Amino acid sequence: MPVKEIPDIIVGRLPVYLRALRHMRENGQQTTSSQELGERVGISAAQIRKDLSQFGEFGKQGTGYHIPYLIDKLCEILKVDRVWDVAVIGAGDMGHALTRYQGFINRGFRITMVFDKNPELIGLKIGGLTIQSVDNIVESLKAGKVVMAMLTVPATAAQKVADKLVEAGVKAILNYAPISLNVPKGVIVQYIDPSTHLQRMTYYL
Amino acid sequence: MPVKEIPDIIVGRLPVYLRALRHMRENGQQTTSSQELGERVGISAAQIRKDLSQFGEFGKQGTGYHIPYLIDKLCEILKVDRVWDVAVIGAGDMGHALTRYQGFINRGFRITMVFDKNPELIGLKIGGLTIQSVDNIVESLKAGKVVMAMLTVPATAAQKVADKLVEAGVKAILNYAPISLNVPKGVIVQYIDPSTHLQRMTYYL
Repeated sequence: MPVKEIPDIIVGRLPVYLRALRHMRENGQQTTSSQELGERVGISAAQIRKDLSQFGEFGKQGTGYHIPYLIDKLCEILKVDRVWDVAVIGAGDMGHALTRYQGFINRGFRITMVFDKNPELIGLKIGGLTIQSVDNIVESLKAGKVVMAMLTVPATAAQKVADKLVEAGVKAILNYAPISLNVPKGVIVQYIDPSTHLQRMTYYL
Repeated sequence: MPVKEIPDIIVGRLPVYLRALRHMRENGQQTTSSQELGERVGISAAQIRKDLSQFGEFGKQGTGYHIPYLIDKLCEILKVDRVWDVAVIGAGDMGHALTRYQGFINRGFRITMVFDKNPELIGLKIGGLTIQSVDNIVESLKAGKVVMAMLTVPATAAQKVADKLVEAGVKAILNYAPISLNVPKGVIVQYIDPSTHLQRMTYYL
């Protein structure tokens, strides 16, 4: 638990730094500078130095950042130095795509359960996982000690399912349903809604 | 073009307000307050009033906001009082899900082209659209005057494809590839990377 409270906007940039550092490491690079990292991610070098300095002293004057070390540190800070089990709720097109997505495991996540309410889908498999009935979601999540979920159900069902997730002890929800969720304190929600992102861009066009 | 520059963080909240207002209207509601809207979207009433006041005087002391009017105004500000053509690049699971997604048209967007480089996919149909070869992407986008695109290709191909999009005159890219893109000034990129969102949450767990 960090002693001082870090602004969420800074926390939100760390995964972006981590992703870029990993790309550099994959390309065999061992060190980088805040300048180079900044150009990669489109954030100023000064901002990156300021962000990282919130968590400690990771770079050396003149030699910059040792990439594998900084990756380890960022993984530790973001708590992805372990693998988190994640449930997908909703086995439609989006749930399907997420469940089959190969990009999670290297980033600290593993989808271990998929749920849907459609009887025609329950029992079918997606990428090795059997689609379970949402009727048993509270028991299944509790038994599996799953505290993270991705919600891909229709907007009309999202709040009801979110309440179930909270009841099951889920603490972090990535919500793909295009609706704001009400959750109690201590539960975190992040939103992915492509229309919202597109609208944020059309403003500038 | 707005006269004063509005902080992007405010612009980013407008689509969320708009979405919530539309849900209210769908439920037959005609007026709302910044308090009620704030509870819906998890943002303080004061912040909402402050955000909206950047763009004009939309509410009345005592009676609050007239929902259809505020929706019209927000659509105008975000330039979604029209429908934008959007191209999807990459016809894998995610491109497939996005192309079939029914949630765009009511929010100001319509997917009109899908591209892939896989010869086995080219010519197949997704939701009424024929998958085109990415080899012709510049010509096709130019001919269709498409200025928005969603990028769902692998990270290793993303920058190259983004360069093509820029060449074709695309001005706004919603990037699903887990990599930061370099684009010239005047081109906007927004990112959707579920791992990044998940990592932003594990920090707090």
